[in-house]
Amino acid sequence: MHTQKRSYQFQVQPQDVDFQGRSTVTALGNILLSAANFNADDNGFGMRRLNEAGCAWVLTKLAIEMHRFPLQYEEVRVETWVESVDRLTTTRNFCIRDKEGAIIGNAGSHWVMIDINTRRPKDLHTLEGIQSCIDDEPGLIEKPGRLVAFTGVLLDSFRVKYSDIDINVHTNSVRYIEWISNCFSLDTYRRQKIKRFEIHYIAETLFDEQLELFGEEPTVGDFRFEIRKQDKAVCRARVAFENA
Amino acid sequence: MHTQKRSYQFQVQPQDVDFQGRSTVTALGNILLSAANFNADDNGFGMRRLNEAGCAWVLTKLAIEMHRFPLQYEEVRVETWVESVDRLTTTRNFCIRDKEGAIIGNAGSHWVMIDINTRRPKDLHTLEGIQSCIDDEPGLIEKPGRLVAFTGVLLDSFRVKYSDIDINVHTNSVRYIEWISNCFSLDTYRRQKIKRFEIHYIAETLFDEQLELFGEEPTVGDFRFEIRKQDKAVCRARVAFENA
Repeated sequence: MHTQKRSYQFQVQPQDVDFQGRSTVTALGNILLSAANFNADDNGFGMRRLNEAGCAWVLTKLAIEMHRFPLQYEEVRVETWVESVDRLTTTRNFCIRDKEGAIIGNAGSHWVMIDINTRRPKDLHTLEGIQSCIDDEPGLIEKPGRLVAFTGVLLDSFRVKYSDIDINVHTNSVRYIEWISNCFSLDTYRRQKIKRFEIHYIAETLFDEQLELFGEEPTVGDFRFEIRKQDKAVCRARVAFENA
Repeated sequence: MHTQKRSYQFQVQPQDVDFQGRSTVTALGNILLSAANFNADDNGFGMRRLNEAGCAWVLTKLAIEMHRFPLQYEEVRVETWVESVDRLTTTRNFCIRDKEGAIIGNAGSHWVMIDINTRRPKDLHTLEGIQSCIDDEPGLIEKPGRLVAFTGVLLDSFRVKYSDIDINVHTNSVRYIEWISNCFSLDTYRRQKIKRFEIHYIAETLFDEQLELFGEEPTVGDFRFEIRKQDKAVCRARVAFENA
């Protein structure tokens, strides 16, 4: 098998950390997406090549589990590889290591390839080169699962702004993580740490659309979130804390 | 003279660009602050060394002028150097070049060193090593000047959230740039580009504080902003556009 697993180095910048000097889950999301981008590029099926063919990668699910969050100025290495490619979905795993090589966290993600014009998923078997880059090593954490609908209570509402949108005029995937991360008090972050953050993207949102964020805590320390546009879910998330 | 000018390379990531695929002024702010951090570190007076001595760098003024904004995936080199060190303020300049070495933008900044506990500025002459790192080459643009108070109209209001604060529980300097960048329509960004973005930080803001953003356009395409906390200015900015 032709293994295309590689690792990419990042340094946690001052703007990536929270009030405790630890990388935010949002900044980690950015690091993981950058690693995915670099790796897809290195393997010949990066966003730029897809764009040339009128296609784009869309992240549909992401799960992150951290033993610890890296600190300001810390260097981390993100290993990433494509575990499988089905007709419509590809699974990409991540392993995050500190400078000494110890694993500090893992992540798993699902992606679809869409046609930029129709916004519909395309058959991944038509994507040249990706099959030879599969490394069927499973990720070290449970894959992103299914998150079911719930009612919940309204926690926040906002309009999609200029700084929220990407090159497709759609809300950047990482912004949803940021909005959810803002639902917890500083006291929660002081006493506990995020053990698992899982997010499913259901529908795209556009500039100036009004969104509402609902949440519930069915079990102590285990939160569910849903972001809705006109009462329809656009993403769901689960955040599980553990004592710090 | 002992010249300590150095350059640092960055690649514009998908999350750094706006709907037109150009780096946002916010992302450029992050790149400049990272370059300043790296350079101060390389010269022995980085944030970590200051923190050990109970001090911290605080950005007080920043002016950015761009001929063009770098594109998604573009690599830029940021040259940065300390131009002068007065008793309370040091001036750091930046020159942003593309891969071919052509200048695409410049920036100038003023910094003070504060005592972390008292939050008061400290005499920069007490900071060992900085004097030998001065390269008195002036920046290529007008230094950040004085921005005067005005009344203006209320454009936005928000509370400082978890994702807005840094390791000092204060609002991250770059967030103010982001809030201001969100005051323009997509149509403005389509028809015009930011020529000069200038911001002065007056007072720090803390988690959960309520802020209001006021603005006016005294001359066409030349905007003034003021962010206020309980009617007192915490920062002022000026954004001048030119036809794209």
